[in-house]
Formats: sequence, structure tokens, C-alpha cells
Amino acid sequence: MQFTSEQRLDGVVLEREFVLGEIPGILWTPGFASASAPMPLILLSPPPLGLRKMYPRLVAHARQAAADGFATATIELPGGGERPRLPSAERAVADLRRALAAGEAVSDEIIDALILPLVDRAVPEWREALDALLRLPEIGGPVGYSGGVISIGTRLAVVEPRIAAAVLFAGSFVPRAMFEEARQVTIPLHVLLQWDDEGNDRQAALNLFDAFGSKEKTLHANMGGHTGVPQFAGDAAAQFFTRHLK
Amino acid sequence: MQFTSEQRLDGVVLEREFVLGEIPGILWTPGFASASAPMPLILLSPPPLGLRKMYPRLVAHARQAAADGFATATIELPGGGERPRLPSAERAVADLRRALAAGEAVSDEIIDALILPLVDRAVPEWREALDALLRLPEIGGPVGYSGGVISIGTRLAVVEPRIAAAVLFAGSFVPRAMFEEARQVTIPLHVLLQWDDEGNDRQAALNLFDAFGSKEKTLHANMGGHTGVPQFAGDAAAQFFTRHLK
Repeated sequence: MQFTSEQRLDGVVLEREFVLGEIPGILWTPGFASASAPMPLILLSPPPLGLRKMYPRLVAHARQAAADGFATATIELPGGGERPRLPSAERAVADLRRALAAGEAVSDEIIDALILPLVDRAVPEWREALDALLRLPEIGGPVGYSGGVISIGTRLAVVEPRIAAAVLFAGSFVPRAMFEEARQVTIPLHVLLQWDDEGNDRQAALNLFDAFGSKEKTLHANMGGHTGVPQFAGDAAAQFFTRHLK
Repeated sequence: MQFTSEQRLDGVVLEREFVLGEIPGILWTPGFASASAPMPLILLSPPPLGLRKMYPRLVAHARQAAADGFATATIELPGGGERPRLPSAERAVADLRRALAAGEAVSDEIIDALILPLVDRAVPEWREALDALLRLPEIGGPVGYSGGVISIGTRLAVVEPRIAAAVLFAGSFVPRAMFEEARQVTIPLHVLLQWDDEGNDRQAALNLFDAFGSKEKTLHANMGGHTGVPQFAGDAAAQFFTRHLK
């Protein structure tokens, strides 16, 4: 991991861009981090749209988390931002658009092709990022994951024992195979669902929530469309991390 | 409304028992109420088991609400505690037990007979209690409703304009007619659902949540069985009232 730039936001939060091999990322830490004990970390997974497009929402998250005493970090997803496109995903997106334009149901094959290669590639990258981040003296854990591609968060929760709790946003297609993985999740989960998110399959989200094996799992469903998560729902997610990571 | 007894809990919360005609009730107010401005009120509807049986849970609610600056009040439901039984409900309970023992689905007719007469009787009583409570100088409103028979809360939210926000516990049978009433609800709602509550019809609860007409409605689903609402879920409900009633 190599830092490429740094700036102070409002003189408080330290924002450092980095590259991890070819993957760009950003780390945010509360001010005066070096003076204090190693702090817990929240991995903020961006939607596949890319870090730059999502920057305003990510930095808002990061500021709130810093105020609560957390470091946060994010990396560009495979195929996101300036990273090389994933050819399989490009084809799946074209198939998806065709199906939606024709008013057809989105087939399991399209969903698998859209999501599974992304999960297969992203999860090892997030683990590698976690290795690098936890080597920094100011980052100590425990580690939370907060993310928008729910299948990535589900896989990470199964395979990455350093992740202690996760906030998962149920707003993307769920491949059939993920229901089986969900049963193996045991960490505390806080799942956000936008109830009237027209591009999302609400029933699949409820089925996935039902499948999670965790003894503590909470579903927060709200109105406001895909991008309209209310402020109070963000606050509740922040409280979840404070409960579990501090 | 006639007060029949009063005591201080921990020297802080004033607990006053009262009767409203034949109906027993309890009012809790934070200490030193008379010195401050008229305060907001939360109506705490008990489950039909009766005030005495539910007292520990009610008083825990009342203490938390008092710490947040709210008065709380409750009245015995029709047929609850020492109040005269409702013959229609007794028959419906017998039919319900028979159906459950025979492993049959609970019919709409049984659900209607169990719930609708209770709603029809309880709602005017709660409105009468509200009239009396709002005449007290220390109670000013706004008024919230927090309750365990979700159909009573739904009807109250439709017919009683003084109720500004409601926490509804989705843990009881829902008559078909309530879905139509739910569409007429417009106040902010915070709905609690115990996901693995075996005695509850989860799909009916989700359908009712979907039917509510409110622009702000939130569903919090948690693990822990019918009576196992986690502490953090209670805290979130309290924050909902603070957001809407203060």
C-alpha cells in the first residue's frame, strides 16, 4: 500500500489516497490519530459506480465515522472507476438492459453473470487491503464492513474472520448461490432495505435476511427509494458499529 | 378520570393509578413535572394479558420515556385484567386453540372475531383517556402511541388526529379489514417485528407494513422471539419518539 496524497478535511479528518498494487483507495482517520490508541476500522465498500462518483457519499460516511472514533477505508471495486472493465460483467449488463427493455424477468443466469465474478474478484482484494491497513500503527481493529453490494459483504463475512460486524445494504441482485453462503454467516448484521426501491427485488432481500445464520441480525426497512436512505437510518447503522466495534 | 393512588419510583418518576369510569389506568410523569412546561405524552397500550401481568415491562418503558422527558399512560384493554371478559373474544380464543391443536390454519373468521370487537371497543376508550389526560396541566402533547395490538394502533392512527407518531409492534393477528385502514394512515410509523416469532404471521406483518400510507415508515425486524425485543431496538423506538414528539 502506497500513499499518493493527503489532505485534512475541515482540519479534522485526515484523508489519504493510496494505491494497493493497481487498485486505488482512500483512508480516512480522525484527527490526532497518532496520539491515541490504535483505532477500530470500518471498510466502506462503494457501489460499482466508482469511487469518484460516490465520493460525496463516502466522505459523508467517513466524517460521521471519524466523529465516532473510527478509521474508514475504501478501495475501487473490480471494473469500477478507472479500473479495467470486467468483460463478463459488461456482457451481463447488456443482457440485463435487454431483459428490462423487453419487460422480461431478469433471469438467474444474468444475475449470476453480473454478480458472481465481481464477488470472486473483489473479496480477495478487500482481504489484501485489510492486511495492509492493519499493518498501519494507527489502525488496530476490530473491523466492520459497510457495503452496497450485499453479496460481497456476505462472502466477506463468511471467509474473513477479522470482520466482526457488518452493515449490509440490500439493494442489488442476489445470485442463488449467495443464499447458501448467507447461512454460514454468524457475525452481527445490520441490514438496510429501501422498501420502495423499484430496481431491487424486495422479496429476494427478505429471503436473504431470513437466510443469514447470525443470531443477532436486524433489518431496517425505510421509504425513500434506492438512494434515499434517511439520515436517521444512517445514524442507527452508526450506532450498530459503535455497539459492536468499541 | 380519578386518581386512586400515587407513588414515587426511585424518587424520580411519579406513578399515579387512576380510573376512567370503570377502566383502570396508570400515568407516569418525570419528576418535578409541575415546574416545567406541559410535556409530550406517549400512550402505552398493553397486550391483552392485562396491566398487572405486564407491569414490569410497562414501567420499564415508562422510566425510559420519563428520562427522555415524556409522560406515559396506559389503560386496561377491554376484557383485560379484572375487566369483564368479552364473550366474542372468549369464543374466538377457544376456536383459535382448537384450530392450532388440530394443526389447521387460523381462519380469517377466527381472526376477525378475535381482534375486531377488541379494536371497536378499545379505540373509543383510548380517545376518552386522551381527552382526560390532555386536560391535566402537566400534559401538553404532542402525543405518541406505542402498542402491542397493532390493529388498535392502526385504527387509532386513522381516527385520532391528536396522535402524531406511533410505534407499532407487529406481533398479533391482522384482520383483513385492517389492510384497508392501514392505507389511510399518514403519520410517521416505527414498526417492530420479531422475525422468528413463531406465533406471528410474518408475511401478514410485512403486508401490513407495505399497506401503511405513511410517507415515513420504518420496519425494524429483530431476532429473539415474541418477547425478546432487544434493548437496542427499544432504544431505537425511543429515539423515534424523541425525533417526532419533541
